[in-house]
Amino acid sequence: MKIIIIGASGTLGRPVTRALQQDHEVITAGSKSGDLQLNITSPASIQGFFEKVKSFDALISTTGHGHFGPLNTMTDTDFRKGIDNKLMGQVNLVLIGQHFISAGGSFTLTSGIVSDDPVLLTANLSAVNGALNSFVKAAAIELKNGVRINVVSPNVVEDSPDFFPYFPGHTPVTMESVKQAYLKSVLGGQTGQTIKVH
Amino acid sequence: MKIIIIGASGTLGRPVTRALQQDHEVITAGSKSGDLQLNITSPASIQGFFEKVKSFDALISTTGHGHFGPLNTMTDTDFRKGIDNKLMGQVNLVLIGQHFISAGGSFTLTSGIVSDDPVLLTANLSAVNGALNSFVKAAAIELKNGVRINVVSPNVVEDSPDFFPYFPGHTPVTMESVKQAYLKSVLGGQTGQTIKVH
Ligand SMILES: NC(=O)c1ccc[n+]([C@@H]2O[C@H](COP(=O)([O-])OP(=O)(O)OC[C@H]3O[C@@H](n4cnc5c(N)ncnc54)[C@H](OP(=O)(O)O)[C@@H]3O)[C@@H](O)[C@H]2O)c1
Ligand SMILES: NC(=O)c1ccc[n+]([C@@H]2O[C@H](COP(=O)([O-])OP(=O)(O)OC[C@H]3O[C@@H](n4cnc5c(N)ncnc54)[C@H](OP(=O)(O)O)[C@@H]3O)[C@@H](O)[C@H]2O)c1
Repeated sequence: MKIIIIGASGTLGRPVTRALQQDHEVITAGSKSGDLQLNITSPASIQGFFEKVKSFDALISTTGHGHFGPLNTMTDTDFRKGIDNKLMGQVNLVLIGQHFISAGGSFTLTSGIVSDDPVLLTANLSAVNGALNSFVKAAAIELKNGVRINVVSPNVVEDSPDFFPYFPGHTPVTMESVKQAYLKSVLGGQTGQTIKVH
Repeated sequence: MKIIIIGASGTLGRPVTRALQQDHEVITAGSKSGDLQLNITSPASIQGFFEKVKSFDALISTTGHGHFGPLNTMTDTDFRKGIDNKLMGQVNLVLIGQHFISAGGSFTLTSGIVSDDPVLLTANLSAVNGALNSFVKAAAIELKNGVRINVVSPNVVEDSPDFFPYFPGHTPVTMESVKQAYLKSVLGGQTGQTIKVH
């Protein structure tokens, strides 16, 4: 398969890339790193990216950030950070990528645990993750030609110790289990699923 | 209690308004209708609205729309209709309203069934509703002074027959049950809940 990984240089992207490179043609991408560059916050940049790639069998997105901060000072501008980046960035990878993906292909996006089990400071990221989980459920019933779509929702990963203090009572998950969730989506048959690693 | 109802003139808003007017001071609002006008898509308009109201005990939002259309022609611009209106409109009612609400007050927003059980053409509304359900869960753990927040997630209501053809296999819910869900949120004690009427 020809597999695109957006965010391949990141904490989650690196092990997923290594695993898939063994048996597949992997195209790595990021805003600065990777085989090809794109900016997920720009629909024009995403369109140009797919025009270069032409066609593909699977797309994995391990990218996206949002606003992390207290609710009592949060503004519309703060909240739109996660909307414009992690949410619309990944939604636009699908809205535009659906016109380039091969029959039977798959999209795999990334959300995160805080949609279901929020911690302090995550009002924006909870909303963004909840939107992504529901988006894949709805998109799955409309994608054509057997194209599938899922989202991986990890808890904090063992390789991201900087986040641990913000997640009291959470047991960080292994990178191995997170990597397997992406492989399940790409190599398995399910669609419309939130694959929880928590 | 002094209760604000944004969208009071709408299908859902009317019966909720009638029920609460019996025992409470209700301020009705809409973009054109009601005691006071505001445009939920403008943070400046929301700010001006709360400055006029000064303080309140409960806010109910029965407003918000999104893009209803097929995934295979959906664009960033289409998708942002629901983001800018139903999602950010209601999020901004909370982000700004938290600075005006009385101790022990409550916010009650509106999402809808398609976040959990999508029908065709609802990729945008599913995402918006999923975002709202997760937002209230996260906001609930940060709101100060005992302020509560919930969201009502109705199925199609019996009073909206125009929607029935788009919801095959769904049994429309009674307006009485939807009205009761709003009363549960405002008059009850729970917070962070998605109150499903489906
Ligand atoms: N780490 C965790 O514990 C954890 C837990 C749950 C969920 N998540 C979610 O998983 C995702 C990845 O997290 P991570 O920790 O692996 O992030 P990360 O290490 O910061 O990696 C981000 C990746 O995205 C790329 N990128 C950044 N901005 C971009 C843009 N505008 N356009 C295209 N690519 C861009 C980066 O490459 P360039 O530098 O080349 O742009 C990099 O490869 C995020 O959505 C995060 O919320 C992470
Ligand atoms: N009806 C259903 O079966 C159903 C089922 C599930 C979920 N829902 C959700 O419930 C909510 C209300 O639905 P509905 O059918 O009652 O809608 P509706 O009958 O169209 O009423 C909309 C209300 O919102 C106000 N409004 C519109 N734009 C506004 C703006 N920019 N700023 C402030 N107020 C505005 C309108 O008043 P003005 O005309 O004065 O602006 C009106 O009072 C929506 O979020 C909908 O998705 C409805």
